[in-house]
Amino acid sequence: MAAKSSLKTPKGTRDWVGGDLLLRDHIFTVLERHGGTPLDTPVFELGSILSEKYGEESRLIYNLADQGGEACSLRYDLTVPFARWLSMRSDVQHIRRYQIAKVYRRDQPAVARGRLREFYQCDFDIAGVYDPMIPDAEILCIIVEVFEALEIGVGVKINHRNILDGLFEVAGVPADRIRATSSAVDKLDKAPWDEVRQELLGKGLTEEVVDRVGGYVQRRGGMREMFASLGSDAELAAKKTLMEGVADMELLASYLEAMGVVDKVSFDLSLARGLDYYTGLIYEVVVDGTNQPTQVGSIAAGGRYDDLVGMYGRRPLPCVGISFGVDRIFTILDARRKKKSSSNLRGQAEVYIMAFGGKEFEGLLLERMRVARQLSGAGIRAEFSAKVKPKPLQQFNASEGVPVAVMLGQDELEAGQVRVKCLHVGDKDAAKDKGQLIPRENLVDEVRRLVAGTP
Amino acid sequence: MAAKSSLKTPKGTRDWVGGDLLLRDHIFTVLERHGGTPLDTPVFELGSILSEKYGEESRLIYNLADQGGEACSLRYDLTVPFARWLSMRSDVQHIRRYQIAKVYRRDQPAVARGRLREFYQCDFDIAGVYDPMIPDAEILCIIVEVFEALEIGVGVKINHRNILDGLFEVAGVPADRIRATSSAVDKLDKAPWDEVRQELLGKGLTEEVVDRVGGYVQRRGGMREMFASLGSDAELAAKKTLMEGVADMELLASYLEAMGVVDKVSFDLSLARGLDYYTGLIYEVVVDGTNQPTQVGSIAAGGRYDDLVGMYGRRPLPCVGISFGVDRIFTILDARRKKKSSSNLRGQAEVYIMAFGGKEFEGLLLERMRVARQLSGAGIRAEFSAKVKPKPLQQFNASEGVPVAVMLGQDELEAGQVRVKCLHVGDKDAAKDKGQLIPRENLVDEVRRLVAGTP
Repeated sequence: MAAKSSLKTPKGTRDWVGGDLLLRDHIFTVLERHGGTPLDTPVFELGSILSEKYGEESRLIYNLADQGGEACSLRYDLTVPFARWLSMRSDVQHIRRYQIAKVYRRDQPAVARGRLREFYQCDFDIAGVYDPMIPDAEILCIIVEVFEALEIGVGVKINHRNILDGLFEVAGVPADRIRATSSAVDKLDKAPWDEVRQELLGKGLTEEVVDRVGGYVQRRGGMREMFASLGSDAELAAKKTLMEGVADMELLASYLEAMGVVDKVSFDLSLARGLDYYTGLIYEVVVDGTNQPTQVGSIAAGGRYDDLVGMYGRRPLPCVGISFGVDRIFTILDARRKKKSSSNLRGQAEVYIMAFGGKEFEGLLLERMRVARQLSGAGIRAEFSAKVKPKPLQQFNASEGVPVAVMLGQDELEAGQVRVKCLHVGDKDAAKDKGQLIPRENLVDEVRRLVAGTP
Repeated sequence: MAAKSSLKTPKGTRDWVGGDLLLRDHIFTVLERHGGTPLDTPVFELGSILSEKYGEESRLIYNLADQGGEACSLRYDLTVPFARWLSMRSDVQHIRRYQIAKVYRRDQPAVARGRLREFYQCDFDIAGVYDPMIPDAEILCIIVEVFEALEIGVGVKINHRNILDGLFEVAGVPADRIRATSSAVDKLDKAPWDEVRQELLGKGLTEEVVDRVGGYVQRRGGMREMFASLGSDAELAAKKTLMEGVADMELLASYLEAMGVVDKVSFDLSLARGLDYYTGLIYEVVVDGTNQPTQVGSIAAGGRYDDLVGMYGRRPLPCVGISFGVDRIFTILDARRKKKSSSNLRGQAEVYIMAFGGKEFEGLLLERMRVARQLSGAGIRAEFSAKVKPKPLQQFNASEGVPVAVMLGQDELEAGQVRVKCLHVGDKDAAKDKGQLIPRENLVDEVRRLVAGTP
């Protein structure tokens, strides 16, 4: 038997119930609208599938215990399982897929800010060989449309791995410190430059190199303006991979202009993304508003990862995609919605079946059951009191929130009639409304009409 | 890097994609219709929450590796997490909840028969103190309605733990062998009596006791007939808990008759259910048809568990519920549906945007992007070729399965016009149909009208 003190969910996890789940479902519905092919993968993968994909973050992977058989780990994101699936399905040359599922990270949880150890991600990815930057532009367009639909004001920060790595090389960062420099720079959205500067010095870079890095990565601005600034620097302009990155970004900008979303996007040279597998464009979505920009961190992020599928040894396949942080989006929308009754645990019954009678009232339970079965057989969600002889007040209380009532009485039943009524119409006349008496055989049609007419 | 040989999902798990997921979603929709309050719990629980709940089956529980912190296990079913949640939420006195989620068992998988190590269950439970057998009858009614809606012919076998245990006691089974006897008897749906008889003899029961057990548990039949048979046996009639079970069943039968589902239900004294936590009515749903009754085993099962919530030490709360085996239901429906193209991986785009031109055709990519954004901004799922200069045939092939096309041409665009057309109307006139030329500003309305009009 469990001790009382251990009656809880594991650290960093939570239960979801009632109204909270309905809000989460609303988020899913918006995300699904951008569709593509749905994919669902197992919650755990072979350990070898996940290894060497996440760099430093690998220490946060949950492993299953060795109980004999294969070594397995809980999925850390939805990108690596998608790449694994693409490697196995070599018949798939082009696909737009989406997946909504929980992922697992042994991180320090901060539940109030929507940071959990078990959390939902929604991923949308485009895999296949296409003309440059067209799928990338589509993904950015989807990001903008999703947050428009959710009515959350956001900005999308973008950068390009080739540009970032090129800048570091020009600044004099040794090749073996590029990723470490990148991950230090990525903290610039939460920490001031001085702090990042100290970290870089601690990694063995010289003051001169660090200050050149600082000069580059603190630039940000509109896309066109940034291209001009990068192109006018002779040292940068001589760096081939860097200028290829700039050319990608210029093409992207023209597409974003055509799609009318370019004003949502800013070019931010400090954006680096921690994960190892990105190879080109990278992006991160942050909530508008200067007073609480980092409270929930980024609420969506992604990029291009052209080499990940090839790492499984069967064939290369370029991909680009986005992960939406469903729980962080939930935290924002939840804070905004009007607080309803704290225990919003009612189901969604459409009809409540009651029975009333005089002194010798026997409860009419079998009749209530017959009517319930008739209605639910017709696809109408019906409930009734699970008491043999329920009191009128008990039945009215139990019907709270249900739009329609069917009321049974012995005399009326004997005359082949039942009473139907709209509940909670919200004005004073409601109490006086006795509903209407209808022939028993019209019950399903009449209830359907009333349910359809209620808000 | 993963070796090629390990490019697979873990044993007993599978990916779900495209049409398969849409069929699974259809099953979810039917199950959700019976609603109640949705609940979602973490995929893993503290180990102590799961321990001592599953009897012999506990060996099939997946544990997480010890990486510091709490000992956790993957959930084995949805019933125990629900009981844990009810214990924590002592403000909840009555609830009808449903949960659809994956559960985990380290069992021998048989994928073709829908038996996996990771599989979906859909649980519907009613918790709270109610008048006897009313929620139990409601659950049985939901079972019947769900399989009516899924168009799967089923029978529901029911039994009662008090009756079963009473029979064993009257037959002379010692108290400490009751559960073992029960789990041997439960195999009677797959094995002949002779085999079960040998197992019981192996457990140290005498021939006389075993043969009395056999005489009882091989009885089955209509409910009323079985009550009469049990009641007419003086030895059984003297057993108080047994006759209380019979009284429960008689009450239940009257409710099932009122709900018109009694003909789907048969009283089967060999039904025992392996899990320890059941306390009263138990049931199992099997597919109709004598030629393949056990191919997928039972497709739903459940019962009353009045003591499980109390095991967590805070308060007792009686519960009754049902678990639907979603993957087994999937296996049945999948075998039945017409086989579609093997790689049913298309998304659900509603419109495909094409562009055509003469010799100097530049592809009109930015125009296609503008139109795509205009349509998707209006909530219409639009796709276009991710090529700068796509060929006509490439575009027609890529539009397969999409109901509506928007066709762009340079001259028409300059005249402020676009062409819209229904695709794949399925008769010979389709090829001749050039669609209709409309003003650009009517595009969204016209596409919406065409999309709504297609099947």
